[in-house]
Amino acid sequence: MDFVIGTNSRADALRAALATTQGEHDLVLVCADDYAAAEAALAGQPAGRDVVNLTSGTREQAARLATRGRYLDGALMAHPEHVGDPATVTVYSGSAEVFDRHRERLAAFGQAVYLGPDPGTAALYDLALLNLAWATLTGYLQTAALLGSAGVRAAEVSPLITGWLTGTVNQVITEYAGQIDEGRYPGDGEWLELDAPLMDHLRDATRELGLDDTLATTVRSLTHRAIDAGHGQHSFASLVEVIRSGAPETV
Amino acid sequence: MDFVIGTNSRADALRAALATTQGEHDLVLVCADDYAAAEAALAGQPAGRDVVNLTSGTREQAARLATRGRYLDGALMAHPEHVGDPATVTVYSGSAEVFDRHRERLAAFGQAVYLGPDPGTAALYDLALLNLAWATLTGYLQTAALLGSAGVRAAEVSPLITGWLTGTVNQVITEYAGQIDEGRYPGDGEWLELDAPLMDHLRDATRELGLDDTLATTVRSLTHRAIDAGHGQHSFASLVEVIRSGAPETV
Repeated sequence: MDFVIGTNSRADALRAALATTQGEHDLVLVCADDYAAAEAALAGQPAGRDVVNLTSGTREQAARLATRGRYLDGALMAHPEHVGDPATVTVYSGSAEVFDRHRERLAAFGQAVYLGPDPGTAALYDLALLNLAWATLTGYLQTAALLGSAGVRAAEVSPLITGWLTGTVNQVITEYAGQIDEGRYPGDGEWLELDAPLMDHLRDATRELGLDDTLATTVRSLTHRAIDAGHGQHSFASLVEVIRSGAPETV
Repeated sequence: MDFVIGTNSRADALRAALATTQGEHDLVLVCADDYAAAEAALAGQPAGRDVVNLTSGTREQAARLATRGRYLDGALMAHPEHVGDPATVTVYSGSAEVFDRHRERLAAFGQAVYLGPDPGTAALYDLALLNLAWATLTGYLQTAALLGSAGVRAAEVSPLITGWLTGTVNQVITEYAGQIDEGRYPGDGEWLELDAPLMDHLRDATRELGLDDTLATTVRSLTHRAIDAGHGQHSFASLVEVIRSGAPETV
């Protein structure tokens, strides 16, 4: 018999989706509020059962739980209401056997992607994509505030914004991915010294409208650090070099 | 006869696209490096010609140039190589007559959207979407650096990332747009006090990997300001209230 640990809305959504599936092997699915709660709940479970843990946490926490064996760590990178949507992605790492035994049932949550045997990899993906979501959504909220200052309603412009993310921004991400892997950032179409004055415009306009400017200042500061490091004629993707160089205090 | 002002790669891309079109009315298309160059070039043009200006600038700069009349301000929100792509969006504001006379030709650059008679509106959209692009791309570069620390190649994961932006993140943006317009941020599926410890994980993991943490710190700081303002049980969209309240120093 399956057993789902967790009382939050994510656990509820997973429980409902799992109930639509059937499997030959029992599964303990965990989606607690944090790893302390997950560990406490698992301590009460008999060993030797397959565990899939979708609690958000760190690589170290996943590695510690994996020592119990038959352990697959996972990350649900969506809001509860999107569980089961074909666009929803769940990533897993840890026991390949557990993933294979339950692969079809896990597909009830969305796309199920196996990332390899290191139980910590899914947690790193989770954090890395949460990071992207927060950055994108913070940027979106700032954009909505800018447009709102001219009386533009957010719902009016959201089709333009989401279409633009799907089209242009995703194309740029795909280009930048190649540049990052090659370690070369050709500034053929745009380059940091071209961006820098526009970032000044953005910061100034943001301040003049009375809006918080910490996001604009953060991007501008990273850009100027990249220019100072010799990337003025390189693409925006060269900021990855600054990010890899660590916090300014520690350089 | 048409006349295209500008020598950069954006102007070259626009010139090539415009050359594939025909119109009954002549057009002066401007895509200079900045407004000073645009104004200088237009000063040498006879009055009474339709001007479409795709130079990036501020609302004030657009308003000043609009005093010459028959002036349409615009913003090309894409890299030069995406000019002509159906996913590319160009927005225009200012003279409705100029837009109507050249609407079909402007479609050679991508989708042409008219935003109204205020010549400054296109510039605000430009800045607002540049802001979103920079935030999203900075987030992406940070994500690539996080995954790179585990040996994951950027190109390997970019289909997952772009698919996730198109799916989950765009759904969240659409939800948030409604919340912003209503001024209500129900934390049904996620709320700031649930996000906050994950943001601590992100900042700590980022630092432990030796990566720059200014982006993570920025998002975390906005979130804690929102919690302090009473939004702990509200969705991430409530950060728009903090953004609207201005910079911390000025509150």
